[in-house]
Amino acid sequence: MADYKIFELGDVVLQRGATLRGAKLAYKTWGTLNKAKDNVVVMPTWYSGQHQDTEWMIGKGKPLDPSRFFIIVPNMLGNGLSSSPSNTPEPYDRARFPNVTFYDNVVLQHRLVTEVFGIKKIALVTGWSMGAAQTYQWGCLYPEMVERIVPTCGAARCSRHNFVMLEGVKAALTADDAFKNGWYARPPTKGLRAMARVYAGWGFSQTFYREKEYLKLGFSSMEDFLVAFWEGFFIHKDANNLLAMLWTWQNGDISDNPVFKGDFDKALKAIKAPAIVMPGSMDLYFPPEDNEYEVKHMPKAEFRPFKSIYGHFASSALNPVDVVFLKKAIEDVMKR
Amino acid sequence: MADYKIFELGDVVLQRGATLRGAKLAYKTWGTLNKAKDNVVVMPTWYSGQHQDTEWMIGKGKPLDPSRFFIIVPNMLGNGLSSSPSNTPEPYDRARFPNVTFYDNVVLQHRLVTEVFGIKKIALVTGWSMGAAQTYQWGCLYPEMVERIVPTCGAARCSRHNFVMLEGVKAALTADDAFKNGWYARPPTKGLRAMARVYAGWGFSQTFYREKEYLKLGFSSMEDFLVAFWEGFFIHKDANNLLAMLWTWQNGDISDNPVFKGDFDKALKAIKAPAIVMPGSMDLYFPPEDNEYEVKHMPKAEFRPFKSIYGHFASSALNPVDVVFLKKAIEDVMKR
Repeated sequence: MADYKIFELGDVVLQRGATLRGAKLAYKTWGTLNKAKDNVVVMPTWYSGQHQDTEWMIGKGKPLDPSRFFIIVPNMLGNGLSSSPSNTPEPYDRARFPNVTFYDNVVLQHRLVTEVFGIKKIALVTGWSMGAAQTYQWGCLYPEMVERIVPTCGAARCSRHNFVMLEGVKAALTADDAFKNGWYARPPTKGLRAMARVYAGWGFSQTFYREKEYLKLGFSSMEDFLVAFWEGFFIHKDANNLLAMLWTWQNGDISDNPVFKGDFDKALKAIKAPAIVMPGSMDLYFPPEDNEYEVKHMPKAEFRPFKSIYGHFASSALNPVDVVFLKKAIEDVMKR
Repeated sequence: MADYKIFELGDVVLQRGATLRGAKLAYKTWGTLNKAKDNVVVMPTWYSGQHQDTEWMIGKGKPLDPSRFFIIVPNMLGNGLSSSPSNTPEPYDRARFPNVTFYDNVVLQHRLVTEVFGIKKIALVTGWSMGAAQTYQWGCLYPEMVERIVPTCGAARCSRHNFVMLEGVKAALTADDAFKNGWYARPPTKGLRAMARVYAGWGFSQTFYREKEYLKLGFSSMEDFLVAFWEGFFIHKDANNLLAMLWTWQNGDISDNPVFKGDFDKALKAIKAPAIVMPGSMDLYFPPEDNEYEVKHMPKAEFRPFKSIYGHFASSALNPVDVVFLKKAIEDVMKR
């Protein structure tokens, strides 16, 4: 039994021109929508993540309490549950899956929220990493609807350095001959493992490794961390799905759409909602400097970095201190 | 005509047990050894670099003036000119090339300096990156001989994060089936290009990319920089050579030898020479923190980071301001 629902989107014309026929948006909700429909939280997913990977955020005493909030987690296109290379029928299947933008994702999520639930106001949008990009996108596309945002360890557009970092990830995955330009019969596991090793250096800070924090997380050695955590993280994921989401990420820019026509500052300025923008102080691919720029251009944004050696994973379940810090920020923004 | 000489080392027993029969050390010198033999500079090479790649350092008005110094550049084992997988006869050829340590390299360089030139004092040892590791190794192994050192953008041992970063580089290169565990008939160019893309994100800082500094360097776009600079950098290098040097790097520790028996602090303390230790302030894989630790344990060391967006390439010919900064440091240390 699946623990999520499917919203049938029908035939969707994507921003870059393709039509995704019979498109599907997978989602899960927690808590109860109250009568006033004013207790809604939307939390988009992150690179390769699915709704169940957000569960650490949800529960009594956790950053999002379902006894208070009605929490909707829409799965990003490409993540294997919503329309993706791995589940789309021919002819748009596998390597032929079309390019999807953050704009596409958020427009479809908006349809879910309004058409299925009749929601008019969203109390909070929050998300980590690619989820943060979707959070900014929500904020600028639907400023009258989105009341607060908390993007964590992410950015409103993909920086040039982040783009290059992803080129390395992609090159490692696709260097495996078994990838066969996406038409593999068996998974390109050598490439998936290589990709995992490339990611390992980026995901956590130099200090995390210097202090051997992976031992505190229960791994028996650094190599055990590389195999059990990192290779285990990617090995069962579909390569085309990973590349579809990577394309979305690399081409991410909340202003690259018909509404803002590439005017990045204008898109940031359109985010009228009170915001707490939370980079990881030691995040190697979303460095805080890019968020500082954003916050300057957002009308009601506070810059509040995690002071954490967990790098990009500051906004994850791994480090309890970081979770408390995130919980506090969500409490604070809810008072605004 | 080769522009370098070969020192025939004979049969060399390496630290890890193999015997490299008929081992060769390729080197080049600039300037003239004076009568007192007190104008010697030794500059070991860096990862994948060869003596000709150090020429930007040498010349009138440059950091090392050959009218003043007698400059010896010994090529690191594995770099394709000294004994390497690509030039060693069977049975220690190619994938069977033995493991070589920094200790091995420096002991053999010491033989070159003493046996060929009869040198008793070295005025300065300096090197970048893996050349820095050899510089520290010289300083602690031959403290009565080495009068000054200037290691740049490197470390006295490979940090855990740096090790992981290199795991990603290695995984990308070896993900190419054409690599065939090192027994390739044709170069694994897909893997070499993948490795280059992985390296690209590490080599320069986030700020370098944010400010599009690659345009100032004469590249026509970021993709042009990735292809022309990075892929061009690695594409003609031998994969086994790259992996041999990578092993040396990953296993680098100036105390991991019979002299210091793994006591890292003791090895640092043994570096009696005045030193100026020069990390790049934004170097992503040799962060300054590791050098700060070293400097605390070195009797006469000054910590003097490049303030540069060039990341690991702060100590290269690319940025004229950084070259001037390096030249000044060498002038300063020569007064000590």
